Amino acid sequence: MFPIYVMGSSRARAVLLDPSAAGDPIWEAVKAEARSEAEKEPILSSFLYASVLSHDCLERALSFVLANRLEDPTLLATQLIDIFNDVMMNDVDIRRSIRLDAQAFKGRDPSCAQYSWALLYLKGYHSLQSYRIAHVLWNQGRKVLALALQSRISEVFAVDIHPAAKIGEGILLDHGTGLVIGETAVVGNWVSLMQGVTLGGTGKEHGDRHPKIGQGALLGAGATILGNITVGEGAMIAAGSLVLKHVAPHRLERS
Amino acid sequence: MFPIYVMGSSRARAVLLDPSAAGDPIWEAVKAEARSEAEKEPILSSFLYASVLSHDCLERALSFVLANRLEDPTLLATQLIDIFNDVMMNDVDIRRSIRLDAQAFKGRDPSCAQYSWALLYLKGYHSLQSYRIAHVLWNQGRKVLALALQSRISEVFAVDIHPAAKIGEGILLDHGTGLVIGETAVVGNWVSLMQGVTLGGTGKEHGDRHPKIGQGALLGAGATILGNITVGEGAMIAAGSLVLKHVAPHRLERS
Amino acid sequence: MFPIYVMGSSRARAVLLDPSAAGDPIWEAVKAEARSEAEKEPILSSFLYASVLSHDCLERALSFVLANRLEDPTLLATQLIDIFNDVMMNDVDIRRSIRLDAQAFKGRDPSCAQYSWALLYLKGYHSLQSYRIAHVLWNQGRKVLALALQSRISEVFAVDIHPAAKIGEGILLDHGTGLVIGETAVVGNWVSLMQGVTLGGTGKEHGDRHPKIGQGALLGAGATILGNITVGEGAMIAAGSLVLKHVAPHRLERS
Amino acid sequence: MFPIYVMGSSRARAVLLDPSAAGDPIWEAVKAEARSEAEKEPILSSFLYASVLSHDCLERALSFVLANRLEDPTLLATQLIDIFNDVMMNDVDIRRSIRLDAQAFKGRDPSCAQYSWALLYLKGYHSLQSYRIAHVLWNQGRKVLALALQSRISEVFAVDIHPAAKIGEGILLDHGTGLVIGETAVVGNWVSLMQGVTLGGTGKEHGDRHPKIGQGALLGAGATILGNITVGEGAMIAAGSLVLKHVAPHRLERS
Amino acid sequence: MFPIYVMGSSRARAVLLDPSAAGDPIWEAVKAEARSEAEKEPILSSFLYASVLSHDCLERALSFVLANRLEDPTLLATQLIDIFNDVMMNDVDIRRSIRLDAQAFKGRDPSCAQYSWALLYLKGYHSLQSYRIAHVLWNQGRKVLALALQSRISEVFAVDIHPAAKIGEGILLDHGTGLVIGETAVVGNWVSLMQGVTLGGTGKEHGDRHPKIGQGALLGAGATILGNITVGEGAMIAAGSLVLKHVAPHRLERS
Amino acid sequence: MFPIYVMGSSRARAVLLDPSAAGDPIWEAVKAEARSEAEKEPILSSFLYASVLSHDCLERALSFVLANRLEDPTLLATQLIDIFNDVMMNDVDIRRSIRLDAQAFKGRDPSCAQYSWALLYLKGYHSLQSYRIAHVLWNQGRKVLALALQSRISEVFAVDIHPAAKIGEGILLDHGTGLVIGETAVVGNWVSLMQGVTLGGTGKEHGDRHPKIGQGALLGAGATILGNITVGEGAMIAAGSLVLKHVAPHRLERS
Repeated sequence: MFPIYVMGSSRARAVLLDPSAAGDPIWEAVKAEARSEAEKEPILSSFLYASVLSHDCLERALSFVLANRLEDPTLLATQLIDIFNDVMMNDVDIRRSIRLDAQAFKGRDPSCAQYSWALLYLKGYHSLQSYRIAHVLWNQGRKVLALALQSRISEVFAVDIHPAAKIGEGILLDHGTGLVIGETAVVGNWVSLMQGVTLGGTGKEHGDRHPKIGQGALLGAGATILGNITVGEGAMIAAGSLVLKHVAPHRLERS
Repeated sequence: MFPIYVMGSSRARAVLLDPSAAGDPIWEAVKAEARSEAEKEPILSSFLYASVLSHDCLERALSFVLANRLEDPTLLATQLIDIFNDVMMNDVDIRRSIRLDAQAFKGRDPSCAQYSWALLYLKGYHSLQSYRIAHVLWNQGRKVLALALQSRISEVFAVDIHPAAKIGEGILLDHGTGLVIGETAVVGNWVSLMQGVTLGGTGKEHGDRHPKIGQGALLGAGATILGNITVGEGAMIAAGSLVLKHVAPHRLERS
Repeated sequence: MFPIYVMGSSRARAVLLDPSAAGDPIWEAVKAEARSEAEKEPILSSFLYASVLSHDCLERALSFVLANRLEDPTLLATQLIDIFNDVMMNDVDIRRSIRLDAQAFKGRDPSCAQYSWALLYLKGYHSLQSYRIAHVLWNQGRKVLALALQSRISEVFAVDIHPAAKIGEGILLDHGTGLVIGETAVVGNWVSLMQGVTLGGTGKEHGDRHPKIGQGALLGAGATILGNITVGEGAMIAAGSLVLKHVAPHRLERS
Repeated sequence: MFPIYVMGSSRARAVLLDPSAAGDPIWEAVKAEARSEAEKEPILSSFLYASVLSHDCLERALSFVLANRLEDPTLLATQLIDIFNDVMMNDVDIRRSIRLDAQAFKGRDPSCAQYSWALLYLKGYHSLQSYRIAHVLWNQGRKVLALALQSRISEVFAVDIHPAAKIGEGILLDHGTGLVIGETAVVGNWVSLMQGVTLGGTGKEHGDRHPKIGQGALLGAGATILGNITVGEGAMIAAGSLVLKHVAPHRLERS
Repeated sequence: MFPIYVMGSSRARAVLLDPSAAGDPIWEAVKAEARSEAEKEPILSSFLYASVLSHDCLERALSFVLANRLEDPTLLATQLIDIFNDVMMNDVDIRRSIRLDAQAFKGRDPSCAQYSWALLYLKGYHSLQSYRIAHVLWNQGRKVLALALQSRISEVFAVDIHPAAKIGEGILLDHGTGLVIGETAVVGNWVSLMQGVTLGGTGKEHGDRHPKIGQGALLGAGATILGNITVGEGAMIAAGSLVLKHVAPHRLERS
Repeated sequence: MFPIYVMGSSRARAVLLDPSAAGDPIWEAVKAEARSEAEKEPILSSFLYASVLSHDCLERALSFVLANRLEDPTLLATQLIDIFNDVMMNDVDIRRSIRLDAQAFKGRDPSCAQYSWALLYLKGYHSLQSYRIAHVLWNQGRKVLALALQSRISEVFAVDIHPAAKIGEGILLDHGTGLVIGETAVVGNWVSLMQGVTLGGTGKEHGDRHPKIGQGALLGAGATILGNITVGEGAMIAAGSLVLKHVAPHRLERS
C-alpha cells in the first residue's frame, strides 16, 4: 500500500536526504496508523499522540519511544532524548537505517501488520535502533556511554549487541530475546536474526574473533555461530544450529 | 494436602462457577501460605498482605500482582488493575485456567513447593496469565491494547506469546525466559514448556503457520518447533531439538 | 597491570581477610578506572561517583549497584542496600568470590577491558552476585526473601538461578540472558557459563536432580545439561549441546 | 446548566441513594466536559479517559484520581484505590458530600468553570475528599492508616486536616495551601475556607480544644481561629484575622 | 561581576533578540558557576552537567529543570520538555523575562549568591517560570493544558498562580510557599512578592476582580490584597497586612 | 510512661553519648509502638518494619525515613541514606537533638500521642531533622549540597529553612507548612514554631539580618518576625503578628 524504499533508488536517497521535502511514506503511514488506533482505543490515545502524532519526523518519535523505555535514574529520559535526537538528526545513515529496518519488519514478519507496530511495540526493533545509537556514540569515542546504553538495552530488552559490532540495514530482529552479537561481528544488509541467535567468539581468539554474516542471510532461532567465520550471502542457518566453519552463499546449513 | 481439581469433575466445575460458595481450595492454600510467611519474614509482610490477604478471591489477587509488575507510564497500575479485573471476573474460562495452571506449577515443578510461589514469584506463571488477559482482549477486538500488553510482557518477563495464540489450561511454563509462541500456534491442555521454547513459523508461510501441540506434551528447554505441524498428545521433545515435521503421540523426539 | 589473585595464595588470603589493610588491588583498579572515566564522560560522572568513588570498599559499591537495579516497590533500594551490606560485610566467602569473579570476567571475557565494567555494566556479573546474596539468605533460613530476590533477578536480568544452588568462585557468566540453574546444581570454581545455558532436571526425578559441573569447565551458549550427572573438570560442552550423561574431565562434548 | 442539588431536597436524596437510577447530573456533567476536552487537547485525552470516561460513577473516578496523586512506595496506588473504593462505595454520606462539595466549588469559585476542574485539577477538592476518606478510616478504628494518609495529604497538597476533625458538606476549600484543621474542630455545611486558614488550639488546653465553625461561614485567607470557640452561622472572618473569642452569627469579624 | 541588563537598554534588547550572538552574560555566569560547583561536589556533578552544561542556552536548561520537577505519569518529562522548549524558544518575551527574573533574584535576595542557584534550587523561580509557560499556553487557547500545569505547580511548589494572570518581569518571588495570584490580577515589572502573599478576590465580584500591583512594589510575607484595587508604583505592603482599598504610589501600607 | 530527658541531666548525657549502652528510652518506645501498630494494621506492617524495626538505632531509622521522602533522580535514596547516616552517626549534637525534638513533639503537641508518630508521619519533624543534616553539611563547607537539600525540603515539605540558620533543640515545629527561617536567624532551645511563621529580613539589610529567638519562646501561626531583632526567652508571639522590634522576655506580643 505504501511505496517501498528500494535500496539505492534515487527516491529513497531523496527521501532520506530530506524526508520532509520529498515526502516520507513510512512516517506518513505511521501517523495514519496512530491516528486510526487512537480513535479506537482511548486508553492508548495519549500514548499514540505523545509517541507519534506530536512529533514532526520519525527520528524524534523514535527518540521519544526509546528514551522512555531505556531511562533509569542514571540516565533520565530527558537526557536520553537529547542524546538520541542529536545522534539521529545528524547521521544520515541512521536515518536511512531506521526506515529500512521498519520496512524489513513489516515486510518479513507476518505478525507485524503495520509500520507503527515495529516503532511502538516490538522490542526487536527497539533494541536494534538503540544499538544503532550506541554504535554512533562508540565511534565518536564515547565508549563508556555506549557501554552504559548496552547495559540498559540488555536489561530492558534482553538483547546484547556490542556497540562496536557493525550491522547493516533492512534488518529484521524478530522477538529479540537472548540475541547476542559480539564486538567484532559484522552483519550485512537485509539479514534476519531470530530470537536467541549468538554471533560469538570461540573463546580461544583475541582481536577480530566474531562472525561475518553476508547480506540477506537468515539465522534461525537459537543458532550459534562462533569465531571469525563467514556466512555467505543468502545463506540460511537452521534454528538451533552450531556453526563453527564458513558457510557458502545461499546454502542451507543445519547441524 | 489440598484437594486437586480434576478436569471436568463436578467439584471443579462447582468451584469455578462460584468459587466463594463451593470453597476454593487453591485460594485457601494461597492465603494460608501467605499468612504463615508474613509472620516469618516481616520485610515481606505488607507485600503478602497487599498481594494476597487483602483480597477476597484469587482473581483480584492475581490482577493486583500482574498490574504492579506490568505497569509503566503508558498503562498505570491503577488502569491495568481495572482492565485485568474486568477480564478475569467476567470470563469463567480464565478463572478456571488460572487455578489449573497453579496446580500444574505446584504439581510438576519440584521447586514450586507452594501455590503462592507461582502467584507471587514465578515469571512463568505471571507471563502465562498476562497472556491469557491479552488473549481475551484480542478476541474482544481490542488488538492494539493486546499488542501493548504483549510488548510489556516481553520486556518485563522476556516471554513473547502472541495474543492470538490459543493455549489450553493446566500449563506449566517453567522459568519462561526466551519463550516465543506465534500467532497461529495452538497448545493443548496440560502441556509443559521449558525456557527458550519456540513455537514459530518457517518464514515461508502465511496464514495458519505455527505448530499445534497436543495435550500433555512436554517441550524441553530451547526446543524449536517450526511450521504448521502437529506434536501429538503426550509427546516429549528433547531440549534443544529442532522439529520441522509432525511428531506422533507419546513419542520421544530428539534431533 | 594489577596483581592477580591466585586462588589459595597467601596474598589473596590476606587481602580477603582484611582488604583495607593488605591493599585491595581490584578495588584500587575500579576506583582508578571510575576516576578516569568520570572525567571523560560528565553525563556519567555522578553515577560513577555514587556507584564507586563515594564508597570505601568493593562490597559497599556492589551493594549500591545491585540495590538500585533490583529495587521495586516491594523491596525499596534503601531496604535492599541494608540487606546486601549485612550479607556481604559479614561473609568472608562472598567477599572473596566477588573479587575472584571480577578477575574471571576481566581475564576471560575479551570485551571486558576493565574490572569496573563488570561491576557497573555487565548483567552476568550483576546476576551472579545477586544470586550469591540470595544464596546466603536461603542458607540463613530466609527462604521466602531469597525467592523474592530470585524473582526480581529473573525479571531484571533474565537470569534464573535457584538460591539453593551451589556455585564456586572465579565464575564467568557471560551475557547471562536465559541462564537457568536448578535447585540442586553444583558448579565448581573457575567455570565459564555462556548465555542460555541450562543446568536442569529431567523432570522425572525428585531430590538431588541437577548437574554437578567440575572446576574449570566451559559451558557453551545454549548448552542444556540435564539430570544429576557430572561434567568433569575442564570439560568443554559445545554450544547448543544436550547433555544427559556424565562427561569425562577435559573432554570436548558436542551433541 | 445542570440541575443543582438543594440540600435536603427529595431529588438530591434520591440521586444520592442511588445515583445511577435517578440520574446523576454532576457525574453526567463531568463526563460531558471530559469528552469535550479530550477532543481539544490530545495530550490529555488518555488522562481524561482514564480518570473519568473509563469509570461508571463519580466515586470510582475520584478514587482513581486521588490514589494516583497520593501513592508512594508505602501505599501503592493499587492499594489505595481499593481502600478508597471500599470507603466511598459503602458510605452514603461521603457519596453525597463529594457531590455537594463539587457543587460548592463550581458555584462559589469563579475560576472553577466546570465540575470536572474540581475533580481533576484543584488540590483544595483533592485534599478535602482525601480527608473525608481518612475520617471514615479513623472512625473505623484504623487510626494509624488514617495518620499515614494525613501525612501524605500534608506532603502532597500542603493541607493538614486531622482525620478526627468533623467537616460538613458543600464545602469550598479554595487553593488549599497552608490550611490546618485540628483534631477536635467542627466545620458546618456550606462553609468556605480560603488558603492558609488555621482552626487550631491555643496550646493551653487539652481535650476539646479547637473551633466550631457554623454553617455557611466564610473564613478569609490566613485567618487564624484558635481555641474551643464558636464562629456563628454565616459569619465572615476577614483575611489575616486572629480570632480568640466567639463570633456572633452573620457578623463580619476583622482583627 | 556580570553585566546587568538595564530594562529597555539597547544591550539588553540585542542580547535578548539573539542571545548567542551578542553574548548572554547570565547564561555565561550560570555555566561558570555550574562548572566550578561540579568540581567541588561530585555527587551533584552529573546533575549540574545535565541541567546546565549539556545545554546551549538558558531556555533549554530551564526547560530541562522544570520538566523534571513537574513531571508525573500524566505528563511525562519527555513530553513537558518538548512543550516547554516550544514555548520558550518561540516567545521573545519569555526569553527576556527569565533573564530579568534571574537578575531580580540575584540582585534582591541576599541569600541568592549566584544566578545558577535561582535556576537550580529556588522554587520561587521555578514556579514563576512554570507559570510563564502556562500563561502562554492559556493565551494560545490551550486552557485545559494550562490548568493541568497550574495543578502540578500548586502540588509541587505550593504556589498557585492562575495562568490567566498577567505578571511583568524582573520579579522576585521569594520562598514561594502559599503564594496565590488570581485570574484577573496584574503585577507590574520589578515587583517583589514574599511567601504567603494573596492577590485574591473579595468573593462578591465576578469578572475583573483581582488586584493590580504597580511596578516596583514590595508585598510582604502573608500580605493579603483583595479585590479590583490598585497598589501604586513602589508601594510597600507590610507583612501580614490586609489591603482592601487602593494604595497610593510609594506609600508604606500596614494594617 | 517513658523517662523524659531533662536537658543537661547526667542521664540524658549518658544516653546520648552511648545510646545503646545506657538504654535509649525514646528508641525503645518507638520500637514498641511500631510493633504494636504493625499487628493492628497489616497494610503498614512492612513500612513499620522497614522504617523502625529493622534498624538498630533511632539515627538509622530516621535516615531511612528521610531518605525515602526526599529522594529524587538527582539524589537517590541510596545516596541520601549514606550521607544522612554519615552525618548523624558522627555528630553527637544531632543525635541529642533528634531525641529532644521527639520529646518536644510528644510533650507539646496534644495530637502527637506517640514518639513514633513524629518520626513517621509529621512533616514538621521531618523537615526539622532534614534541616539539621543540611546545616551540618553547610558547616562542613558542602554548601551546594546543603542548598540542593534545602530545595528538596522546600518542595516536599513546604518548609524553607536556610541551612546556615542556627536552631537549638527540643523544638516543636507544628504542621510546618509555610515556615520560612532565614540565613542568619538563631532559634533557642525549646522554642515552638507554628505553621506559616517567618523569621525573615526586612529587605533593607545585608549580613546579620534575621531574628534571634530566645529559649522557650512560642511563635503563633503565621507570625512574621523581621530583621535582626531579639524575641526574649519565653515570649509568646500571637498568631498573625508582625514583629519588627525587640520583644522582652516572657512578654505576650500581639500586633
